Amino acid sequence: MGDIRLAIVGLGKIARDQHIPAIAATEGIELTAIASRNAKLGAVAHFATIDDLLAGAPEVDAVALCTPPQVRRAQAASALRAGKHVLLEKPPGASVSELPVLIAAAEIGKRTLFATWHSRFAAGVEPARIFLAEREIRSVRIEWKEDVRVWHPGQTWIWEPGGLGVFDPGINALSILTRILPQPIFLTAAELRFPENCAAPIAADLDFSDEAGTLIRAEFDFLQTGPQTWDIHVDTDQGRLTLSSGGARLFHDGRILVDGEDAEYRGIYRRFVDLIRTGQSDVDLTPLAHVADAFMLGRRKTVEAFVEEAA
Amino acid sequence: MGDIRLAIVGLGKIARDQHIPAIAATEGIELTAIASRNAKLGAVAHFATIDDLLAGAPEVDAVALCTPPQVRRAQAASALRAGKHVLLEKPPGASVSELPVLIAAAEIGKRTLFATWHSRFAAGVEPARIFLAEREIRSVRIEWKEDVRVWHPGQTWIWEPGGLGVFDPGINALSILTRILPQPIFLTAAELRFPENCAAPIAADLDFSDEAGTLIRAEFDFLQTGPQTWDIHVDTDQGRLTLSSGGARLFHDGRILVDGEDAEYRGIYRRFVDLIRTGQSDVDLTPLAHVADAFMLGRRKTVEAFVEEAA
Repeated sequence: MGDIRLAIVGLGKIARDQHIPAIAATEGIELTAIASRNAKLGAVAHFATIDDLLAGAPEVDAVALCTPPQVRRAQAASALRAGKHVLLEKPPGASVSELPVLIAAAEIGKRTLFATWHSRFAAGVEPARIFLAEREIRSVRIEWKEDVRVWHPGQTWIWEPGGLGVFDPGINALSILTRILPQPIFLTAAELRFPENCAAPIAADLDFSDEAGTLIRAEFDFLQTGPQTWDIHVDTDQGRLTLSSGGARLFHDGRILVDGEDAEYRGIYRRFVDLIRTGQSDVDLTPLAHVADAFMLGRRKTVEAFVEEAA
Repeated sequence: MGDIRLAIVGLGKIARDQHIPAIAATEGIELTAIASRNAKLGAVAHFATIDDLLAGAPEVDAVALCTPPQVRRAQAASALRAGKHVLLEKPPGASVSELPVLIAAAEIGKRTLFATWHSRFAAGVEPARIFLAEREIRSVRIEWKEDVRVWHPGQTWIWEPGGLGVFDPGINALSILTRILPQPIFLTAAELRFPENCAAPIAADLDFSDEAGTLIRAEFDFLQTGPQTWDIHVDTDQGRLTLSSGGARLFHDGRILVDGEDAEYRGIYRRFVDLIRTGQSDVDLTPLAHVADAFMLGRRKTVEAFVEEAA
């Protein structure tokens, strides 16, 4: 079987920083086209829109949608209609309910739909899942605190409805949490802090629980300067497990078990190749459903305006 | 088989107005106990809490939870653990994610879990579903406008997080819509208007669509005085179908097809008896997922404070 010919739609920061190097490092897939209104990439075939791409590059087998979530559903629907496999950056959409429609379209067309959660490919996640499967879990505490000015420069879509604000990184924590815990969880309370000039929150505190009544607390903050914190602590009957550095490092009672390099997107593309070759899809809506619950059930607080170019 | 012995938990307006007369009118089920902190019902056995009820009335087969959605999950979990069948008023919970955990508990315990959507039992709904199954749908317009002071007197929980505000009635329209349309829909945009002193919206405009790009618009308003409006208009290739009066009346191009009496809750209890007797559950989360999407994707606007005892 020849290489899968892939097009990237949306040539922004995440595509350049992560997708392009990961595709180059992955066997069985090659980048053959780009759709982006403004940006180009060397000699790679370029189209202004996904519709131009689908019309002008019929040899493309698959598309990776790296556009903001608000426009992704229509692009995914077009690509599936044109017979392409589709990879969705996270979050997989702007609404939970749009995903079942895409899943059905992929099934009918016998194409792969892959809703990626890159943090699930961090080195410590699978070892953490295996460790926790056998343990009694007493409590969970998540701290996911980063500086939006460093990680999302100029990404105004993040503050628009559907852009999710601090849940854009926070959903990464939820994607790990829902993978490593042996039982399903649900939100019980939340506080969301909206800057007075933004349609999305800049900070959130979330309380989850499960059938056993476990206390699970998450703190998301988008204004963390200095050291950045992407940690999940799980207290069990056999000590404390800590996933740190966004899941790349795993500790048990302070002793390091895993210290992985950043290879999340290579994991994504290996899995995408596997899914296409075996005719499968992989769409887990759970993290997005938790975020929707937080917006529905959360108490809103208005906080001071966010200005990107602050002093 | 003897009658199903039912307890009502939460003896508020909906229990008195709807559940009690419907139970009395339904073969195969009888009201044998009440749990309510303050209210009693004649000679029916009374308990202050659901825990007291479960301990003190072991002969009860099933419970109907008519409490506010914020407390219902814990009550449903307790009742299922005690081996009771459970009927949930709408909305079925305060979060989407809490429902799969209850569904799993009901399955494991071989008990019936019934998430009711009373408006789906209105007389015009099933005829509308059958009519639309064969038609090309061009557009849908929903107007769901009622006076909160008339229909929800003193119900302060409705303005708290999880109380849903205008979505408490609006979700009835969505429960009908998702039953009568032949294709799944998803939210594309929304505006939610929050009174400055409330944690839930008092009005909302919602845009939905489907795979075919159909325009579906809903307007929810909680400040409608004078005539009340609970209408769904569907324009098709064979004229306009209108469900009016909350689904009780059905018109085709202005000609009345169905003019039903209000028998929604009798339909609910007939179905609950059937589900218990046949060992099934019935939990459709779709309407609640659309509401969660609206809170996540919707643009928020602050409007003037809501004071129940307005001049």
